[in-house]
Amino acid sequence: MTITETNSQVQQWTNLAQQLRVDSIRCSTNAGSGHPTSSLSAADLMSVLMISYLHYDFDNPKNPNNDHLIFSKGHASPLLYSMFKAAGAITDDEFMTYRKFGSRLEGHPTPVLPWVDVATGSLGQGLPIGVGIALAGKYLDKLPYHIWVLLGDSETAEGSVWEAIDHASHYKLDNLVGILDVNRLGQRGETELGWNTAAYEARVKAFGWNAIVIDGHSYDEINSAFARASQPNGSPTLIIAKTIKGKGVSFLENKEGWHGKALSPEQAEQAIQELKPVRSMIFPVQKPAPAQLLPKPAKKAVDLPRYDGKEAVATRKAYGDALKALGAANPDVVALDGEVSNSTYAEEFAKAYPDRFFEQYIAEQQMVAAAVGMSVRNRIPFASTFAAFFTRAFDFIRMAAISRANIRLVGSHAGVSIGEDGPSQMGLEDLAMMRTVFGSTVVYPSDANQTAQLVEQMANHGGVVYMRTTREKTPVLYAPDEQFQIGGSKVIHQSNNDQLTVVAAGVTLHEALKAYDQLRDQHITIRVIDAYSVKPMDEETLLAAAQEAGNKFVVVEDHWPEGGLGDAVIDVFTQRDGPLPQVVKLAVQSMPGSGTPAELMEEAGISAHHIVEAVNALLRGI
Amino acid sequence: MTITETNSQVQQWTNLAQQLRVDSIRCSTNAGSGHPTSSLSAADLMSVLMISYLHYDFDNPKNPNNDHLIFSKGHASPLLYSMFKAAGAITDDEFMTYRKFGSRLEGHPTPVLPWVDVATGSLGQGLPIGVGIALAGKYLDKLPYHIWVLLGDSETAEGSVWEAIDHASHYKLDNLVGILDVNRLGQRGETELGWNTAAYEARVKAFGWNAIVIDGHSYDEINSAFARASQPNGSPTLIIAKTIKGKGVSFLENKEGWHGKALSPEQAEQAIQELKPVRSMIFPVQKPAPAQLLPKPAKKAVDLPRYDGKEAVATRKAYGDALKALGAANPDVVALDGEVSNSTYAEEFAKAYPDRFFEQYIAEQQMVAAAVGMSVRNRIPFASTFAAFFTRAFDFIRMAAISRANIRLVGSHAGVSIGEDGPSQMGLEDLAMMRTVFGSTVVYPSDANQTAQLVEQMANHGGVVYMRTTREKTPVLYAPDEQFQIGGSKVIHQSNNDQLTVVAAGVTLHEALKAYDQLRDQHITIRVIDAYSVKPMDEETLLAAAQEAGNKFVVVEDHWPEGGLGDAVIDVFTQRDGPLPQVVKLAVQSMPGSGTPAELMEEAGISAHHIVEAVNALLRGI
Repeated sequence: MTITETNSQVQQWTNLAQQLRVDSIRCSTNAGSGHPTSSLSAADLMSVLMISYLHYDFDNPKNPNNDHLIFSKGHASPLLYSMFKAAGAITDDEFMTYRKFGSRLEGHPTPVLPWVDVATGSLGQGLPIGVGIALAGKYLDKLPYHIWVLLGDSETAEGSVWEAIDHASHYKLDNLVGILDVNRLGQRGETELGWNTAAYEARVKAFGWNAIVIDGHSYDEINSAFARASQPNGSPTLIIAKTIKGKGVSFLENKEGWHGKALSPEQAEQAIQELKPVRSMIFPVQKPAPAQLLPKPAKKAVDLPRYDGKEAVATRKAYGDALKALGAANPDVVALDGEVSNSTYAEEFAKAYPDRFFEQYIAEQQMVAAAVGMSVRNRIPFASTFAAFFTRAFDFIRMAAISRANIRLVGSHAGVSIGEDGPSQMGLEDLAMMRTVFGSTVVYPSDANQTAQLVEQMANHGGVVYMRTTREKTPVLYAPDEQFQIGGSKVIHQSNNDQLTVVAAGVTLHEALKAYDQLRDQHITIRVIDAYSVKPMDEETLLAAAQEAGNKFVVVEDHWPEGGLGDAVIDVFTQRDGPLPQVVKLAVQSMPGSGTPAELMEEAGISAHHIVEAVNALLRGI
Repeated sequence: MTITETNSQVQQWTNLAQQLRVDSIRCSTNAGSGHPTSSLSAADLMSVLMISYLHYDFDNPKNPNNDHLIFSKGHASPLLYSMFKAAGAITDDEFMTYRKFGSRLEGHPTPVLPWVDVATGSLGQGLPIGVGIALAGKYLDKLPYHIWVLLGDSETAEGSVWEAIDHASHYKLDNLVGILDVNRLGQRGETELGWNTAAYEARVKAFGWNAIVIDGHSYDEINSAFARASQPNGSPTLIIAKTIKGKGVSFLENKEGWHGKALSPEQAEQAIQELKPVRSMIFPVQKPAPAQLLPKPAKKAVDLPRYDGKEAVATRKAYGDALKALGAANPDVVALDGEVSNSTYAEEFAKAYPDRFFEQYIAEQQMVAAAVGMSVRNRIPFASTFAAFFTRAFDFIRMAAISRANIRLVGSHAGVSIGEDGPSQMGLEDLAMMRTVFGSTVVYPSDANQTAQLVEQMANHGGVVYMRTTREKTPVLYAPDEQFQIGGSKVIHQSNNDQLTVVAAGVTLHEALKAYDQLRDQHITIRVIDAYSVKPMDEETLLAAAQEAGNKFVVVEDHWPEGGLGDAVIDVFTQRDGPLPQVVKLAVQSMPGSGTPAELMEEAGISAHHIVEAVNALLRGI
């Protein structure tokens, strides 16, 4: 660039940065809340990015070549929305609806806005999700787009950020650029590391990243940093920008007590005067170069595995088999696992389709985040680990629902029936956790053929979809051609004189079937329902059972009593007229230890023997 | 040491190490499951530690001067239990009950054994908990004990390990020594970093730790490393030991496919022969030097804050006030917060008792782990953040229950009633999450005086105790002297002709009271119950209400429909004779955005207006 070009370039960056600052203040003051000072610190960084490095087609947010910009520090939403306005994507009128009821411009960004990939606001999630998008970009799309992630300094305390840093380095994600806004001040005072940019530098370098320390308000330094960061060199880059919180407004700069506070109208006026207001300008953003998605093999019909019933099969094994079959049929299916793929059986897929399998090591937060990132790039991700260890990623699962992500999670080794390993490995709260996720779907198959069909359905189902699988081998109950669907159930035993209904799913269904036989010998006829679709529950079948079988239920589950299958069954009967049924919940009521699966199910009170006792007691009147 | 002494020392280390190896194989082969090879890799490390550096009084596990030994790689339990046997703490007979039903020697260690501080087995938790104990040791107990944490290499992928590494450095925890068993092989093949000990070294050094890289089978190197690590120098130390999985047995050494597999009896025999068996020896462990706990100020009666009702008060503020009062009365009360103490109001305590407040920055897993560590050292920890962000630590909370830890968690900013910040900040699944934790207690106060009393009760209550607080200021409903207890409830409105009962808690109670007034104007009398103790629920009061008020309930909560207050109320009526009452649950049914608290509660269907409608509909028959 000539000096004149440079000057005009700097002028443009300045103009945009000051406009972003003014707008960040305007919208938050109008809302009466928000984080203007956290926006001001990053305005220069975002101005240079937007004008000179971002490639994004705001008219076509689905353009596969678009860069991805994630505000991991979601509270800087005034800055992000100011950028959308400056890009001409939203009008000033809409811009000023920030944080108002019904506005798309929520307090923290969500994909209600078409230019936002994922919801942020729970700190430490943007970078791990960026890793997922970068994996898709580098290894699946093979397109040159960049993933730019703006991080706050406080959020680097989250371990999930280090999971992302570790994985980005391991996978050589040089399409990923983190921009760390080191403004020194957190919500309640100085951050742990303050302005110690050298500490950040040393840490990320030790993890194999490029680190570029700059003054986050020097356009020269910002520009060179982005120029370097956009050149692929086999490693991800973190731009570590020393910034000033509230930059540009004298009474805000580097002052404590201003986090998450809007300025009063008078303060805002004064601030805007200081910022030398420019008019509401539109700044063109470079569109991405035309590029083509790689041709993909055509989708084929899924050739699911079939189990003839001669041998018992663990549903976790059927999951692996079915996932592999899905992989053969649909090139968009990808799999992730938390270094337990030989236990979850995701390894069946990994061996067959190593290019679409991404080992996430023992980092469940990163694994779920990567699945969300894959969903952003329209893949069909299945992520697996032990059911118990999904609790590690609950915040990510919760946020995935706000992100409107389509992810499939599969938790193996559920319940006390895993046996000797003991309670740390037993998923006993997974159903409660997954049921309470907004818009979620939860299935829990009891048999290999059922598992296979449900895996296929999961691929075509939106939202957060969870499958619980069983460690132990269990008998095959159903023929390969029997049909199962999300929202369905199977009535396994039914007669005209059923006295009571037992509802079970997964491993306890096998106990219920044993109980059925024992009760038949006692001349007690029960209905047995396989409620493999825990959410949504098959209401019709349960309502019919209530009417036809004495309005009495025993529900049995390998889970704590709260929030699982029992509550899902009962929930069908709330919100309705008429007398509600009697329901006895059999669930795990004491802390298990080690033992055989049979010993532990007996101890927990969820074995066939306990079902028989509960049925008898309920029929007698407890 | 003289050469002879050295030789005899090495012989002793060798003897113990080989005995530990033999026993690790014996017990796992007898159990038919377990992780012998992961035990063998660390046997030399643990032998030197036990003979020469550990100070522990096995006869008195409550001795405050005892060191703390945490197996973060809990699957190496055969090694740990072999050490207990070698120390004479358990007999060989008990030792051989490993993984059997009813045995204290579970698949992964739990505090069912008196020498085990905390349950491990969910990887990446031992070091964060060690940080908590080390904080107590250095800053509260001020005793010279060490915390030794044995880590596996795979688990360093967990972000929580880096939260711990960061915090240990920040707090200069030179009483904490990590021992990283880099045996290269994870569950399903090579770990991410394999034997790249230099990578581990660079990473932890960048975080401010001392790092000592050694051959984990060279007694010389192990001994010098422990010698250096036990000298306080202002920083925590990680001993990075390159080891061989299966060390000592030719057909196991560095072989894939042996993770988590017991040897057959024949294989075990062969292995034991190779290991040149020593007899079952007892190896004396050094007892800690006598030391005294610091004298503590005597406990005093708690002088709780009193709210006269002239002004509305947020329950989160009352939490802060009460916690401060508790701090004045009881020197064992400590507080932790995730860098939001000015929002949770933990800052009231922090300002008054800075020596007992531990800032955990935005690292919720570390925060809960530190609370568990404080519980190990008999403190009364209160840990606070936004309700939503406790989801980040669910795995730690779940494990805290298995650890039989006594911790108090306080989540502010619950529900849509937080307003403009949007869904990422709204705790809408916290009640479901906390209710499904084994042995947990959940309270959700509606008023400042109630909050204060419940905070006091939490301090005296065991297990995982959770309080949900509200962001907004709400009217004070109760007099300062009114009594509330865990397990109780308050009937606010009651008459002889109640047609229906509305149950609410926290912010929705205020809506229920408005609804009561509106319904009274319509000549509809309802009972209103403040169910501030969500778990355990006051069964008696609810049963009476069912009987006296039409067997109909409307339950209203600022939470997703699954697993919250509504389900807690319904649960009272399961397991009982007679049909269930009719229950209508009002809960948040759609994804909220931003808006005022009132707009969002109206939109969610949990405002007074919706309660009135639901009551009318239920009385009409829906």
